[in-house]
Amino acid sequence: MASVGIILGSDSDLPKIRDCFEILEKFRVEFEIIISSAHRTPEKTQEWAFGARGRGIKVIIAAAGGAAHLPGVVASHTTLPVIGIPVETNIAGGLDSIMSIIQMPSGIPVAAMPAGKAGGANAALFAISILAVSDESLRLLLEEYRTDMAKKIREINSKMDSMGYKEYIKGLQGK
Amino acid sequence: MASVGIILGSDSDLPKIRDCFEILEKFRVEFEIIISSAHRTPEKTQEWAFGARGRGIKVIIAAAGGAAHLPGVVASHTTLPVIGIPVETNIAGGLDSIMSIIQMPSGIPVAAMPAGKAGGANAALFAISILAVSDESLRLLLEEYRTDMAKKIREINSKMDSMGYKEYIKGLQGK
Amino acid sequence: MASVGIILGSDSDLPKIRDCFEILEKFRVEFEIIISSAHRTPEKTQEWAFGARGRGIKVIIAAAGGAAHLPGVVASHTTLPVIGIPVETNIAGGLDSIMSIIQMPSGIPVAAMPAGKAGGANAALFAISILAVSDESLRLLLEEYRTDMAKKIREINSKMDSMGYKEYIKGLQGK
Amino acid sequence: MASVGIILGSDSDLPKIRDCFEILEKFRVEFEIIISSAHRTPEKTQEWAFGARGRGIKVIIAAAGGAAHLPGVVASHTTLPVIGIPVETNIAGGLDSIMSIIQMPSGIPVAAMPAGKAGGANAALFAISILAVSDESLRLLLEEYRTDMAKKIREINSKMDSMGYKEYIKGLQGK
Amino acid sequence: MASVGIILGSDSDLPKIRDCFEILEKFRVEFEIIISSAHRTPEKTQEWAFGARGRGIKVIIAAAGGAAHLPGVVASHTTLPVIGIPVETNIAGGLDSIMSIIQMPSGIPVAAMPAGKAGGANAALFAISILAVSDESLRLLLEEYRTDMAKKIREINSKMDSMGYKEYIKGLQGK
Amino acid sequence: MASVGIILGSDSDLPKIRDCFEILEKFRVEFEIIISSAHRTPEKTQEWAFGARGRGIKVIIAAAGGAAHLPGVVASHTTLPVIGIPVETNIAGGLDSIMSIIQMPSGIPVAAMPAGKAGGANAALFAISILAVSDESLRLLLEEYRTDMAKKIREINSKMDSMGYKEYIKGLQGK
Amino acid sequence: MASVGIILGSDSDLPKIRDCFEILEKFRVEFEIIISSAHRTPEKTQEWAFGARGRGIKVIIAAAGGAAHLPGVVASHTTLPVIGIPVETNIAGGLDSIMSIIQMPSGIPVAAMPAGKAGGANAALFAISILAVSDESLRLLLEEYRTDMAKKIREINSKMDSMGYKEYIKGLQGK
Amino acid sequence: MASVGIILGSDSDLPKIRDCFEILEKFRVEFEIIISSAHRTPEKTQEWAFGARGRGIKVIIAAAGGAAHLPGVVASHTTLPVIGIPVETNIAGGLDSIMSIIQMPSGIPVAAMPAGKAGGANAALFAISILAVSDESLRLLLEEYRTDMAKKIREINSKMDSMGYKEYIKGLQGK
Repeated sequence: MASVGIILGSDSDLPKIRDCFEILEKFRVEFEIIISSAHRTPEKTQEWAFGARGRGIKVIIAAAGGAAHLPGVVASHTTLPVIGIPVETNIAGGLDSIMSIIQMPSGIPVAAMPAGKAGGANAALFAISILAVSDESLRLLLEEYRTDMAKKIREINSKMDSMGYKEYIKGLQGK
Repeated sequence: MASVGIILGSDSDLPKIRDCFEILEKFRVEFEIIISSAHRTPEKTQEWAFGARGRGIKVIIAAAGGAAHLPGVVASHTTLPVIGIPVETNIAGGLDSIMSIIQMPSGIPVAAMPAGKAGGANAALFAISILAVSDESLRLLLEEYRTDMAKKIREINSKMDSMGYKEYIKGLQGK
Repeated sequence: MASVGIILGSDSDLPKIRDCFEILEKFRVEFEIIISSAHRTPEKTQEWAFGARGRGIKVIIAAAGGAAHLPGVVASHTTLPVIGIPVETNIAGGLDSIMSIIQMPSGIPVAAMPAGKAGGANAALFAISILAVSDESLRLLLEEYRTDMAKKIREINSKMDSMGYKEYIKGLQGK
Repeated sequence: MASVGIILGSDSDLPKIRDCFEILEKFRVEFEIIISSAHRTPEKTQEWAFGARGRGIKVIIAAAGGAAHLPGVVASHTTLPVIGIPVETNIAGGLDSIMSIIQMPSGIPVAAMPAGKAGGANAALFAISILAVSDESLRLLLEEYRTDMAKKIREINSKMDSMGYKEYIKGLQGK
Repeated sequence: MASVGIILGSDSDLPKIRDCFEILEKFRVEFEIIISSAHRTPEKTQEWAFGARGRGIKVIIAAAGGAAHLPGVVASHTTLPVIGIPVETNIAGGLDSIMSIIQMPSGIPVAAMPAGKAGGANAALFAISILAVSDESLRLLLEEYRTDMAKKIREINSKMDSMGYKEYIKGLQGK
Repeated sequence: MASVGIILGSDSDLPKIRDCFEILEKFRVEFEIIISSAHRTPEKTQEWAFGARGRGIKVIIAAAGGAAHLPGVVASHTTLPVIGIPVETNIAGGLDSIMSIIQMPSGIPVAAMPAGKAGGANAALFAISILAVSDESLRLLLEEYRTDMAKKIREINSKMDSMGYKEYIKGLQGK
Repeated sequence: MASVGIILGSDSDLPKIRDCFEILEKFRVEFEIIISSAHRTPEKTQEWAFGARGRGIKVIIAAAGGAAHLPGVVASHTTLPVIGIPVETNIAGGLDSIMSIIQMPSGIPVAAMPAGKAGGANAALFAISILAVSDESLRLLLEEYRTDMAKKIREINSKMDSMGYKEYIKGLQGK
Repeated sequence: MASVGIILGSDSDLPKIRDCFEILEKFRVEFEIIISSAHRTPEKTQEWAFGARGRGIKVIIAAAGGAAHLPGVVASHTTLPVIGIPVETNIAGGLDSIMSIIQMPSGIPVAAMPAGKAGGANAALFAISILAVSDESLRLLLEEYRTDMAKKIREINSKMDSMGYKEYIKGLQGK
């Protein structure tokens, strides 16, 4: 049974938050995905949000761009924690999406993640950190994930130190 | 019977769009007012928007600030023209409100008005211009309104010319 | 006889609002198009705007970028509803166009649409919603349009559910 | 035992997030408060964040303004969910605080709340929604809170309808 | 006969550009002032701009705020040099005014001055520098004006050096 | 003898203001060009600016990007009219350049032109409008230039009307 | 003999950077202060900057607002380290000052400090950290300063813990 | 022994500040490079910063993007001068990075460099200017560097003058 519900305003946003899916899978957290717009399919969005807790969902992730109302609209129909991902746009790289997600009025909170690629990854990790409040095994996996990140950075330093920074930069650009 | 429906996210926004009410009254356009939040009372907002056309409403005006989802949410529940007023905030005077109202996705239009005092007045005048498409008497009143604006500017110039600009400025500041 | 008048500051803006033309045609709303700048051909712009109502025009759509004065200048010469489309620019994706269109002074309203591709589509739909105030058949078509949008989203979900989201993303990128 | 830990970069931020304390108290959620800067007392901040889970803390709220590193720095020392409140500043009302909190890199999530007064309230409510994932009684209180908000709006509408909007506005301003 | 024509979108802008009048008077440059809006009185604005050269005007100064179309609209009706003053607003202190004035399209130039108090002064000085191209006495006065500015700064330094900076600051604040 | 002096902070800005050179040549206005940075070659910049009037220069055009101090620095060394062109950058398309050029302090005016391609063209046209204050033949050429712009727009409309807008758009894109 | 030279574009900026003077005095670092504008007194500014090293100055602090060219202009006349303080303005609290100071071109560095009150303090501390590179006693004082800051925060926490946070907030506001 | 320590939040930032390495090498200033994130490897970052002075480091350069906490976090663990380079992002070309680096609180200074390519170069040159405070030979090299920059600009002018500006532009574009 899915414990994370993911809703996107448009299927074109799917590839932009791919890191979200990959991280949830890596942590073996089950999730459901739905495409539903705050504006084009408001009833579907409402119904999905309203029924989420009943379906066993514990955390919701909502991604949208521009006048990104989706996370707020979902939050208006559930008391589950809602995480919002601002999809990048041409307005300063997503300032419109950020403002529409972060500036929620008092009473209905939404947790805003970064615009851009990091948004998907961090939404997944934040959702996992919520689940980990009462799931010891997830907590251990989260700590392992951090250890892995640190290890990768250690390896990068070793490699750079042994190659010299000039060769290392060349290698980066060869990629 | 009201032909304009006005919805505000918070009663504290009422004084900010007072020009809206005054202009509609001046044009003898009947209107209804409701306080209903996109997020705190989503069902009420939906119900109000959904039933608007049935109640004889022809144009909707929605005012909200911050992550100002109200105009967009209302527009998602009706095909009536929806005019959005971005209420001023501390974020650059309402850049968050403007972005949340203007950047609607393709398919669900909202007509964005200026942030600040002009927003209320222009929302009323734009609503009237919509009604005037099929109401000759409103069209004439609109033209009269413009003539009056021009007349006031003419009077200002006469007064300034006769007083001299220095005295005129003193007079402005005495106010 | 055209009921929508479309004015663009430059012919290079024509492809940017192509969705506007397609939607108006889909709804069988007749329209006229003119290229005329607020600044390079002010008399032509004025004459076109001033005569619009007499030619049977009921709604005006004006698209411009940068110091996008065209919608406001057109609105100064007519009491018809004027819809403004901010054309995208390099200044934060069109912040200059948005500000020049949305921040109209009290007395002369312009309805600002989103910058970017959604601007053309929403201008057309908003114009249609104005005409639909007194045109029952257009109202039905608008509702059908919304039903179609919802249907497309339903189909996307079905397809994604049956393919699995990973395959679906691959398919998106293959396009 | 406190289940929410609150950290502020400066004691001058205490009154700005007062709604946070009031809401947590209203929900009878115990919390601890500490003043500790990311930059002036980095060891204290680190120690506090590192030990939080051991002290029984389940969610952390961190408030800071300007180059608001505190939420991110706290998140770097714990896998608990960290909620960041951007304190208002003179830079467009807190654009610097928002950017420093929301744009976290992939791997270390922070949940950004609105700048301004709503930030404190929503941080508390979001923290409670996290605790409510495994606390049925908190969930019920959250739903009651929403019912109360809706009730207040209903009362506002009743009052405005019976007084007339003009008297109601006068009443608002008399306050 | 006036050689500088000054046009303002609203009489409320008069005190904001008072330095403009003072400097022109100081240089004994005659000027005419008119209040005329780009949008509320477009014909008056057009007529005034169109006839300016014939009346002996050599440079035009136009001040407006928000969607500040006035300088651009004036420039569209004359080939005289047009200087635009962006009046301060609540949108980041006048970002809307600046964008509407500075981002003119290729072909119709407007010279944008600073927003705020410096705008009026610099518009006057820039107008004078244009007149000084073919007026030797004005050139000498401009150079004298600069010498005076330098002298004032010299006196400030003398005063601060003799009082000590602490006393000097106290004196500033006593003002 | 050159009557317009053009100074650029970097030779890489030369192609960005090419329209400036073309327009000055079209109007047969002689100009001199120098590459000199406000920061890298301050003495050269100062000397060039200081000596400009003596060399017969009547108007100066200065182009720079980023912390674009060049126009202001040039203006500090001459009382000739100085026109500033903000070169586009990655910061919102040149917001840094615009701010560094437009926000000059009271006393030392700079005439700010648009960022981007229009900047070069309008700087040239504005310089010509200054020269035209006392040069009747340039005034006639300026008016002819405007007539030509209007004529081109008339031709575009004729072509679009005869081809139909769809074919016309295809033609645009074929280019 | 002064080792820090402080230059301000206007005497009205003196009180805004008062923390700068206080910190330098606290550390017993001698400094000289001059008011000199990049634009109004360019020769004085140049001369002062050029001669600074010869007078024994080791670090320069330059404060200015708006098109804040002063730090960059000073840096163009010396190879001493130049620290720039962006003075707050109405443009989003000093975005113009920040951009004009931070976005220096490659080759002539300026160290940008925060806008607002922190700017003066941090400029002084950064100047001291530069002097401390070769002055062991200053390094010890810097570390002591940090210890003091940490101590103050410790005292705040003690006081808040003993009073309770509610009383503590009341006390703050009583101030 | 290295006198400059360079820390980057990600190895992908290495090529973006390549000018930094090149300039330090050109001046024969030894440096060490480490990849360490403020958030992913906080202990490593802390340890590196804390030990820097002991290893003989005299100046630190820290580069990061987005919520760019690295320079501030490093500065919180050392009293050495810390120079921050804001790495470019999609948010208006790095407005988030700039704000996170420049807006440091009173007490812990960071010297902010420009976003983009100039950031790396200027960080190196500013670090060298700090070292040059007590190193006469570096000061001479810095002055030589400036002389070389001026010489290159002189050569550009000579080349442009002899080729004519049109051929010169062609040559630039041929590159």
